[in-house]
Amino acid sequence: MIVKNVPDIIIGRLPIYLRALQRLAEAGAQTTSSQELGDRVGISAAQIRKDISQFGEFGKQGTGYNIPFLIDKLREILKIVRIWDVVVVGAGDMGHALARYQGFVNRGFRIAMVFDNDPNKIGQKIGDFIVQDTTNMVDRIRSAKIIIAMLTVPAKSAQEVTDKLVKAGVKAILNYAPISLNIPSGVKVQYLDPATHLQRMTYYL
Amino acid sequence: MIVKNVPDIIIGRLPIYLRALQRLAEAGAQTTSSQELGDRVGISAAQIRKDISQFGEFGKQGTGYNIPFLIDKLREILKIVRIWDVVVVGAGDMGHALARYQGFVNRGFRIAMVFDNDPNKIGQKIGDFIVQDTTNMVDRIRSAKIIIAMLTVPAKSAQEVTDKLVKAGVKAILNYAPISLNIPSGVKVQYLDPATHLQRMTYYL
Repeated sequence: MIVKNVPDIIIGRLPIYLRALQRLAEAGAQTTSSQELGDRVGISAAQIRKDISQFGEFGKQGTGYNIPFLIDKLREILKIVRIWDVVVVGAGDMGHALARYQGFVNRGFRIAMVFDNDPNKIGQKIGDFIVQDTTNMVDRIRSAKIIIAMLTVPAKSAQEVTDKLVKAGVKAILNYAPISLNIPSGVKVQYLDPATHLQRMTYYL
Repeated sequence: MIVKNVPDIIIGRLPIYLRALQRLAEAGAQTTSSQELGDRVGISAAQIRKDISQFGEFGKQGTGYNIPFLIDKLREILKIVRIWDVVVVGAGDMGHALARYQGFVNRGFRIAMVFDNDPNKIGQKIGDFIVQDTTNMVDRIRSAKIIIAMLTVPAKSAQEVTDKLVKAGVKAILNYAPISLNIPSGVKVQYLDPATHLQRMTYYL
């Protein structure tokens, strides 16, 4: 499936549709409509139809969407038919939580390595992982051909670690540190700093 | 300052500008330009000028923005001149990480209570907090007049807990559970489910 120049805002909604479809499937549903899906995700039925139709004709007038089929198509579009290895850098509380997180199963990801630069943390066990020294990080990530990282280091070291990740070949970073990262084009970042997301809501309170 | 109908996408960028300005201030800077700020956050200078000008004339041609002044204005616009109390519901790994998170200091928030429904977790200490029983949650939140919550419960209980939070008067929810929440108008949600944010990037890999 080759589809070009789909706006990023549409791409951002696909994982939300997928998540809702997977929950419908778990509940035993076989088909859904853009209306039902829209009610679940808080997006209009028309918008959902328009978004999905960017990639092909996946629904049928009258019968709606076949859920397993649409799940497969979305997983293909989002390139999560495979399982991606992910590294966690920063073995503090948030790094611990991510390394032990059960929510990646069936969603395309698995944690492969955990790094920290703190001698007190290196060698510690977190779930199934031994925390490794960031000194060896670039080589380790490069050899394993891992291109996705989750960054849970303090803000003051986030850019330095990012530069190393980029050097190691990482192309996608989930950043929990409260700082905007300077990255070359071709590398993607998503920001999950909780305070920033809270501030986005207080405006409305 | 009364400003009406500013698009939500602009509101979403203000905390990002604020975060960058606070880091510039920490580094001792007094003034900045839309160009410098733009380089830091990866947004064009023109977009930044346009976004900020929605709220008034805060910059001066030639000299740019006074950083402490613009920080004050943004904190005022985002209503974080005050400190908001926040509850955490779900005392698992992610709830632990948030309850102990140091990054809320100076950013407008403080954790006030932590809840869970697991008898093994109720009464446990996390940092400065004793995990409380969700049975008493609605009353406790309502009495304390807390209107912001962070949700770190499993997906299967997220909607039920959300209904209770709404009943308690909560108006803003930071949701870590991998599920779209059904909420009444007037309540805001931000979604921080890590797998969904990773899937948004794999499309580009």
